[in-house]
Amino acid sequence: MLTKTLVNVHGDREMNYVKPSVPKGTRDFLPEQMYRRQFVLDIIKSKLETYGYEPLETPSIEKLEVLSGKYGEEGEHLLFKILKRGSSIEKVGSELKEYTVHRIDELVDLGLRYDLTVPLSRVVAMYQNEITLPFKRYQIQPVWRGDRPQKGRYREFFQCDADTVGSSSMIADAENICLIHDILSELGFDKFKIRINNRKILLGIVEYSDVDSEKGVDICVAIDKLDKIGIDGVRKELLNRNISEAATRKILPILEINGTNEKILADISYILASSAVGTQGIEEISEILSYMDDFGIDKQKLTIDLYLARGLSYYTGPIYESVVEEPRIGSLTGGGRYDELIGLFLGQSIPATGTTLGIERIIDVMTELDMIPEIKTRTTVLVTIFDENTKSLSLRIARDLRRAGINTEVSLNISQLKKQFIYANKKQIPFVVVIGPEELEQGAVTLKDMISGDQERISQDNLIHRFISLPK
Amino acid sequence: MLTKTLVNVHGDREMNYVKPSVPKGTRDFLPEQMYRRQFVLDIIKSKLETYGYEPLETPSIEKLEVLSGKYGEEGEHLLFKILKRGSSIEKVGSELKEYTVHRIDELVDLGLRYDLTVPLSRVVAMYQNEITLPFKRYQIQPVWRGDRPQKGRYREFFQCDADTVGSSSMIADAENICLIHDILSELGFDKFKIRINNRKILLGIVEYSDVDSEKGVDICVAIDKLDKIGIDGVRKELLNRNISEAATRKILPILEINGTNEKILADISYILASSAVGTQGIEEISEILSYMDDFGIDKQKLTIDLYLARGLSYYTGPIYESVVEEPRIGSLTGGGRYDELIGLFLGQSIPATGTTLGIERIIDVMTELDMIPEIKTRTTVLVTIFDENTKSLSLRIARDLRRAGINTEVSLNISQLKKQFIYANKKQIPFVVVIGPEELEQGAVTLKDMISGDQERISQDNLIHRFISLPK
Repeated sequence: MLTKTLVNVHGDREMNYVKPSVPKGTRDFLPEQMYRRQFVLDIIKSKLETYGYEPLETPSIEKLEVLSGKYGEEGEHLLFKILKRGSSIEKVGSELKEYTVHRIDELVDLGLRYDLTVPLSRVVAMYQNEITLPFKRYQIQPVWRGDRPQKGRYREFFQCDADTVGSSSMIADAENICLIHDILSELGFDKFKIRINNRKILLGIVEYSDVDSEKGVDICVAIDKLDKIGIDGVRKELLNRNISEAATRKILPILEINGTNEKILADISYILASSAVGTQGIEEISEILSYMDDFGIDKQKLTIDLYLARGLSYYTGPIYESVVEEPRIGSLTGGGRYDELIGLFLGQSIPATGTTLGIERIIDVMTELDMIPEIKTRTTVLVTIFDENTKSLSLRIARDLRRAGINTEVSLNISQLKKQFIYANKKQIPFVVVIGPEELEQGAVTLKDMISGDQERISQDNLIHRFISLPK
Repeated sequence: MLTKTLVNVHGDREMNYVKPSVPKGTRDFLPEQMYRRQFVLDIIKSKLETYGYEPLETPSIEKLEVLSGKYGEEGEHLLFKILKRGSSIEKVGSELKEYTVHRIDELVDLGLRYDLTVPLSRVVAMYQNEITLPFKRYQIQPVWRGDRPQKGRYREFFQCDADTVGSSSMIADAENICLIHDILSELGFDKFKIRINNRKILLGIVEYSDVDSEKGVDICVAIDKLDKIGIDGVRKELLNRNISEAATRKILPILEINGTNEKILADISYILASSAVGTQGIEEISEILSYMDDFGIDKQKLTIDLYLARGLSYYTGPIYESVVEEPRIGSLTGGGRYDELIGLFLGQSIPATGTTLGIERIIDVMTELDMIPEIKTRTTVLVTIFDENTKSLSLRIARDLRRAGINTEVSLNISQLKKQFIYANKKQIPFVVVIGPEELEQGAVTLKDMISGDQERISQDNLIHRFISLPK
């Protein structure tokens, strides 16, 4: 019936109804999707708290002066900006004729949160007296980016960041890696690898290759593609980027280093022996690996990838990402140490290391792979209403169930019992209680298990005990 | 040290650091505030689910065409509007010289969520095949309003709505009222009242007073002020609003009706006997009251207030609000039946009834009244690191605690033990584990209870059992 009306609405332009939709790249989460998301997020939150991370939330809107200049030219372009309100916009509005293109920024004063790192660095600067360092915080909130939406990429999406602010200790980096290991395992991923490298090793490679340090970025970008384009591809890429033959000849053998993590570290130590920064990077990685032993992490899951660069230029030390290998679904988390960013608003360095979990991707992938138990409803019982005479008793039974903490619906539309059963079935409510004239007289209820189809008559007093003894 | 640097930053304009702040009327929630909010929200969510309400979330951004025309002129003014992005804005931008004041709306295409009701009605229209009616949903998400911020009023604040869509049954209204009763009780409020009235009774009063039905709003506005301005005030207000002496003489005695709910209903029934709509309103209230008996709600907490009007013009039936009387903190929740609004996007009526919980106000009030247990951290243990020799064992102990689900921090900055204790104390972490050379040798740990000051040496094996046997 509803659908029919919608068709009418479409057919009749004069009715002036808006056909409702959500903005491109945004989603509604109906109860079933909410339960799916909660299943994943509850596991993640619980692991985060086990590791001593504590929750933080920041406003969805930030002053443009806080956001601007932080995300590069591309990011600037993707920011959602908010029109000034009230008198400020009226004032600007009346002068609008004089405005030229670039003055459009005068119309806006706020932006939607673009990531969780800039808000964290703002918070660290604003609450120096309230926050004790090291500050281990997690934040799970939406961010907005005006990207072109495509499968798995949204304009409003949740990020989950865990960061440790105010410690230079490699234990903090090791904890982040263990955290990721534990979360992925608990979510049910089995065949995954955590790839580790260190920006300092990359700097060491640049030093060793004797090219201009300006060329360092080109080298990192080129070798980061090894996975995709192979060693010959990297050779071409390096030459295309005007890296000399001589330098390329020094770099390529590094990419062919393989074997156990220990062997890789030994080989690269030998090559970078004369680079102080490279050596420091190697020591940091060794230290992290030793903590992995203490934390009991399966070494098979850790690989040192000397060519891993990760895009964000703000990393300064260890970098890491996790990759699910079977099925091949790519990277689910990424992070690293970024000692120069958090002090942004303070004008000083504060060491920090952290990881982002791609939770939208994790939820999408787990849904596709059927890794999330299907929960259609959290309601356990529907108490039906047989007729006006039994209604009062039905409501009393519902009251008792609710008081015992059992999620209970009451049939709101008194109708044939059959229709009420159809409703329970559609909503996949697992139990239905019937109180008809017979039950009323006997002080009993009929309890139907909608999954097995079993049905029994039990006393009203025993009903609640039946549910409390059920496994959750 | 941090503070000193901030001072430097301020003193030196050339350094070009932005002094960070949040937009007017928005707030950061540090862990301690998060725990306070979670305490309140967890109780509310759990009660909502007990009543069979299910979670829904919608995007923070909505198309302006969905939002506009829904909130009246004032609301329109308070909407946060978002600048178009990318090519659309560049296109508009290049034509900007020609724009006049009112064309400013051409620059924006999206708005921030203003309430949770319009998104619900959009959802009901968009997912007719997915949603089974009656649909009982709750939604706890932020909304944005460019109001003048003041104590307790924010520009970004959470709303919590519970609505039942698709049922005309008064059981649905009764459930909302019981839900509010249960939530307020569970949160620890004792002396509160739930005020009930029915828009149909107000319509009946208008009919009975023989004034033009256009004047109905004036009458409602005037009598709604009874609490604040008294009966003489209402008399003046009515006359000021050009309600005739004769009508005023009919209306005022109605406001003096008092006594038990039953007596009030009997008196008003007699007066409105000739008004069909008024009589229907009275019958609805009586029906709700009878369900209150079944649901076991303390009748002392329910009062029929014939002058309660509630502002929102979209209510069509029962209306209700809760008021805490001791201490006098006013209204915490409000709601009612609104059968014409939810079908907005469908062009048809869909019955609906719901309630809003003023959760920001509830949290603020409970904080002021010290009704929320202070939780400074959820971390249970700090495992200290004595020196390089014991570090590995400390990490292993932390691993074991975490694996047992005990929230554990490890000291990240190896320093004097004393400093590590100061850190635990500052963060109010209740237990500290020490593993020094002696403990290392004995296979033991020293466990210090930071609250009692007690300290004991126990075997490493027994440590976890100590925590598991602790009351949560």
